[in-house]
Amino acid sequence: MTKPLLLKNLRLMGTDAADVLIEDGRIAQIAPKINPTAEVTVEDCDSALALPGLVDAHAHLDKTLWGMPWHPHQQGKSLQQMIDTERALRHELDMDAERQSARQVALSLSKGTTAIRSHVDIDTEHGLSLHRGVVATRARYADVMQIEIVAFPQSGLMIRPGTLELMDQALREGADIVGGLDPCGIDRDPKGQLDAVFGLAEKHGKPIDIHLHEPGEMGAFSLEMILDRTEALTMQGRVTVSHAFCLGMGDQARVAGLLDRIAMLDVSLATTAPAARPVPSVAACRDCGIAICAGNDGIRDTWTPYGNACMLERAMLVGLRNNFRADVEVGWALDTCTTDGARVMGLAGYGLAEGHRADLVLVDVEAISEAVTQRPPRRLVLSGGQIVARNGETEATWQSA
Amino acid sequence: MTKPLLLKNLRLMGTDAADVLIEDGRIAQIAPKINPTAEVTVEDCDSALALPGLVDAHAHLDKTLWGMPWHPHQQGKSLQQMIDTERALRHELDMDAERQSARQVALSLSKGTTAIRSHVDIDTEHGLSLHRGVVATRARYADVMQIEIVAFPQSGLMIRPGTLELMDQALREGADIVGGLDPCGIDRDPKGQLDAVFGLAEKHGKPIDIHLHEPGEMGAFSLEMILDRTEALTMQGRVTVSHAFCLGMGDQARVAGLLDRIAMLDVSLATTAPAARPVPSVAACRDCGIAICAGNDGIRDTWTPYGNACMLERAMLVGLRNNFRADVEVGWALDTCTTDGARVMGLAGYGLAEGHRADLVLVDVEAISEAVTQRPPRRLVLSGGQIVARNGETEATWQSA
Repeated sequence: MTKPLLLKNLRLMGTDAADVLIEDGRIAQIAPKINPTAEVTVEDCDSALALPGLVDAHAHLDKTLWGMPWHPHQQGKSLQQMIDTERALRHELDMDAERQSARQVALSLSKGTTAIRSHVDIDTEHGLSLHRGVVATRARYADVMQIEIVAFPQSGLMIRPGTLELMDQALREGADIVGGLDPCGIDRDPKGQLDAVFGLAEKHGKPIDIHLHEPGEMGAFSLEMILDRTEALTMQGRVTVSHAFCLGMGDQARVAGLLDRIAMLDVSLATTAPAARPVPSVAACRDCGIAICAGNDGIRDTWTPYGNACMLERAMLVGLRNNFRADVEVGWALDTCTTDGARVMGLAGYGLAEGHRADLVLVDVEAISEAVTQRPPRRLVLSGGQIVARNGETEATWQSA
Repeated sequence: MTKPLLLKNLRLMGTDAADVLIEDGRIAQIAPKINPTAEVTVEDCDSALALPGLVDAHAHLDKTLWGMPWHPHQQGKSLQQMIDTERALRHELDMDAERQSARQVALSLSKGTTAIRSHVDIDTEHGLSLHRGVVATRARYADVMQIEIVAFPQSGLMIRPGTLELMDQALREGADIVGGLDPCGIDRDPKGQLDAVFGLAEKHGKPIDIHLHEPGEMGAFSLEMILDRTEALTMQGRVTVSHAFCLGMGDQARVAGLLDRIAMLDVSLATTAPAARPVPSVAACRDCGIAICAGNDGIRDTWTPYGNACMLERAMLVGLRNNFRADVEVGWALDTCTTDGARVMGLAGYGLAEGHRADLVLVDVEAISEAVTQRPPRRLVLSGGQIVARNGETEATWQSA
């Protein structure tokens, strides 16, 4: 039982300064002034801005090379090349999934992330070893990081017999969500893959999150097949499409029609807002009521040398990609990394309100926009009521090997 | 006369560890081991990676709100709205150009920037007041920041009678370069503006740097008019086109033809690599031998809430926009912020070699790619042989008000 914690003088999402009492991992009270009692630990927050815990709703905890020696980037640019390079490098490099995922989780805490949806590779070369590594990390950090695991057939499902059975096993061993990947582009069998993915979801009663990099009309075709199955199997509210680059295509009328149907079926989207690819418009999705969340995707892995696990930086990249400049717009960019992420992950008791889980990120800035555009070191990060990071550094208890 | 400085154990652009002796503002010697003498100050660099001074080749030192209270972003999205909003806000807010430009220069030093090309607004409302403010800052920081000033008709040249005369005066009062802006889009008189700009350049014997936001064929049309005049007036090697969004258009054959002519006339390009606009391809420009440099453009001003003056972050954004992942490619992104910037600015004695100006940026990372993707605080920044920043903080001598 931790002592109650009294945070003095912070501005919740930029509102007037208030005090916040935290008990049993929850926000017990928010008031202009709360007097400390002998039992509480007091933390003066110097009028810092408080955001809710950041949500990285599209991550790959099993892939990062964080904390390992610099590995020169060596793959080609096609998706298939990247997949093959990574599978080979997992053998050559010492990419222990448990150690590496713990490193990323510890790093993420220092940046204020308190919930992560991670896709985890499942293939016939590595079996469930990566999955089990991330499951172990999830257990270790259970008190302070809410982790969802997507069983992800990175190397293909139909083109790698045996993968479906491994995914089935992963869903019995703690995976929360059924993954999928480019049913045309990688599996060359959209009907086969999507029937298999939706079949697994139905069998296990689990939601779905499918990577869809396919651009233009090919992507729209796959997306429609996903929507058809969502409707037929009444999986409204339980399907996420990640990336959805096809929604960045030029034909605005076509995109509008797809967005309408996505909204009607309560399908959600996850974006990384890459600068070099077409992307769904965050504003257009919001207009339709579609939940569009953001993720850092891989950070410093065999796919990309970029990334530092900071979801305020991701919010900045979402803002830049969508040409968001007004404060209200930059707030939308932040929403993709906070409330919309929580909505997609279905996080219970999320947000800065009494009774909710005490996940707070404090930064010494004036305005929400400034938190996104400047991304200062996190003054204080609380997760589940515990202080997990201070001045940009993860607390000793939660550091990784 | 400063004492000679001996930097021990640093890796110049990632090469083997070496010692570097700095005398009279220059790199006097580079050798595997240099023994200190009684006269030198010794600085142990712990095997840090050393980059040459960073170059911000497209800035607006008179525009930043850095260090002022947060100002909610309030303009619309058209270029004309942004121009009008800024001109009005300069009256409402206390935007002293000398103070604000000094703040940005001091900040830039902390990030490792040692040279800046700044466009400075000239218009009939503000006359030469902004220009004179930046000239004062340039004088103050002359020892440690090489600043070029572009006389920039932000509010239009042909549509604001009197502006041409003010630009003429600015060129007599220390401006180095003749600026221009969207001859179709803003001035609605491409022939008139470009004749005026090139006329001023001829009269004063100065180079040219023109903002060209115009997209697609309109931009290509203006660009061709710029190239025509460059050729006719034999201004090869003395013209820069900033932004050049038209070179990001879809018609690859059209773009290739333009790039060939740009290369032939030794015209250079400056980019900010915005995620939400079409942009010239850095790789395609390099292939043609075109110097393409990068700049941070405005930072936290009435145009944009983004920006922190960090040119390693700009290199990252260039890399992300161009989908640069391989180490060699990320190196190209860095080049836009170092060697290519120096080439465009015509900086004498630039680079990490004996006899060159001692502008060095030290970061504690293994690889050049890592410097760009992680952008750690600068361990040490030297400019003209002086230590101007340490551990991410500007030295007291060079702090601004």
